[in-house]
Amino acid sequence: MPFFKAAGIVGLGMLGGSLALDMRRLALAEVIIGASRRRSTLAQARKWGVVDEVTTDISGLIGKVDFLILATPPSVVPIYLKLMARFKPDLLATDVASVKKVIMGQAEKFLRKPHFFVGSHPIAGSEQSGLKAARENLFTGRTVVVTPSANNPPKAVNRVIDFWYALGARTVRMTPEEHDFFLALTSHLPHLVAYALVEATSVLKRPAPDYCLGSGFRDTTRIAKSNPSLWAEILMANRKYVLARSAVFRRRLHYLEELLRAGDTEKLTCHLQRIVQLRERMDEKG
Amino acid sequence: MPFFKAAGIVGLGMLGGSLALDMRRLALAEVIIGASRRRSTLAQARKWGVVDEVTTDISGLIGKVDFLILATPPSVVPIYLKLMARFKPDLLATDVASVKKVIMGQAEKFLRKPHFFVGSHPIAGSEQSGLKAARENLFTGRTVVVTPSANNPPKAVNRVIDFWYALGARTVRMTPEEHDFFLALTSHLPHLVAYALVEATSVLKRPAPDYCLGSGFRDTTRIAKSNPSLWAEILMANRKYVLARSAVFRRRLHYLEELLRAGDTEKLTCHLQRIVQLRERMDEKG
Repeated sequence: MPFFKAAGIVGLGMLGGSLALDMRRLALAEVIIGASRRRSTLAQARKWGVVDEVTTDISGLIGKVDFLILATPPSVVPIYLKLMARFKPDLLATDVASVKKVIMGQAEKFLRKPHFFVGSHPIAGSEQSGLKAARENLFTGRTVVVTPSANNPPKAVNRVIDFWYALGARTVRMTPEEHDFFLALTSHLPHLVAYALVEATSVLKRPAPDYCLGSGFRDTTRIAKSNPSLWAEILMANRKYVLARSAVFRRRLHYLEELLRAGDTEKLTCHLQRIVQLRERMDEKG
Repeated sequence: MPFFKAAGIVGLGMLGGSLALDMRRLALAEVIIGASRRRSTLAQARKWGVVDEVTTDISGLIGKVDFLILATPPSVVPIYLKLMARFKPDLLATDVASVKKVIMGQAEKFLRKPHFFVGSHPIAGSEQSGLKAARENLFTGRTVVVTPSANNPPKAVNRVIDFWYALGARTVRMTPEEHDFFLALTSHLPHLVAYALVEATSVLKRPAPDYCLGSGFRDTTRIAKSNPSLWAEILMANRKYVLARSAVFRRRLHYLEELLRAGDTEKLTCHLQRIVQLRERMDEKG
């Protein structure tokens, strides 16, 4: 039996498109309606059978659905929160943004209390973007951080958790603050570092020939292909924690540089051994 | 027809083992003799049929072969160069180390002129190590940087180039200095950065739960699993250029931090757009 009569997905990029594919496959809604600002994306979504219906009329969409997923860049979310407040204040809704404090802050600001917007962040992103990157089973076995509001009725939170569970994901609850604190380190800082690493290649007078770029460089900087306007938003929205983590990172890099300057290979080996152990432990647990 | 009567491979790790597998498959030598300091590795190599013969007697090995590949950590290379000088000064030989200036300097120091040690660096490494990580076709389509010495007879250089070509690799000639200059940026600095990024996760009082480590973090820090003693040697051997590139990287990171502090999302977007283009161009050419 479907979870929802009509589910709306705003934004048919990699995450929104993948959600639509799995929700149809698993029959989680009787009807899935996709919305996008781009008509070309809607045409593709219809052609590929990603959704049942498409629309550009957002207030109309809100009127029709009993579950709304905002799979848009963070900056677009408040537009929909305001429309929800106006047209259907009791609509169950979630999002997929990599920053939660700013999003949940806007939910408190624009929605009456109690409200039914339960923040989510599926840790299932990639450097790819757009509907062409959407795929089935993207969420299977992945973790979704759910950041409920104190103003969410428990039933709303449980329905959103059940939704992710139905997609094969496991969920974990955090406060928006905790989410942003941890993700600054595990996702936002690596993006910042990868962008800086790629840029460091461009300032050489003699740029390195491309055949010198081994798989190490390519993997380390793969996420520097991530959507620039989306990531500018994410990094900016979480800049307090990103800057704090970047300062820690720079101190660790500086320490490695000091070990190199000191010329003590044995001491450097011991230090790297400890780091390799840390990294290997992440694989065991991950 | 085989290239060599008897080829010796010293060091049966990921690179040495993979070389042995392909040399046997392609019959590039009538006999392939593997040498390692570890008896357990030799036992495995014999059991898995990676080589035809195994030995721990290096001077004996040098006496038997007409081609020697040093697939050892850089610090071990001079030991073999000295033995070559003593037992077979006209032996054609190469290596696979990620640093070339220090290696070629030792070749000039320990071998009489002309000499037949032609430095090589196959850009085909990975974070994996040991014979268990060896695989066929590792070099197919990869680039091998060959760093000839002015003291190499051209015929020796050509034979080493032909050898890599037979393994399916393309070769490019560089001076040892050029090699180390470029690889500092494209390989050594990404390792330093990945190690620092992993270490930055360990200094938090509240460490990030493992489910927060997405594929972005994992890919960006994959090379922080690389063999610590090998990489301590490599980073130390090329520390002049590594430190210079790290300083450039830190300036780029600092600039990104300044953009975050300034709070100008549009400016940050433009900056990231330029970086994403740089990174995408690397994929096109690579």
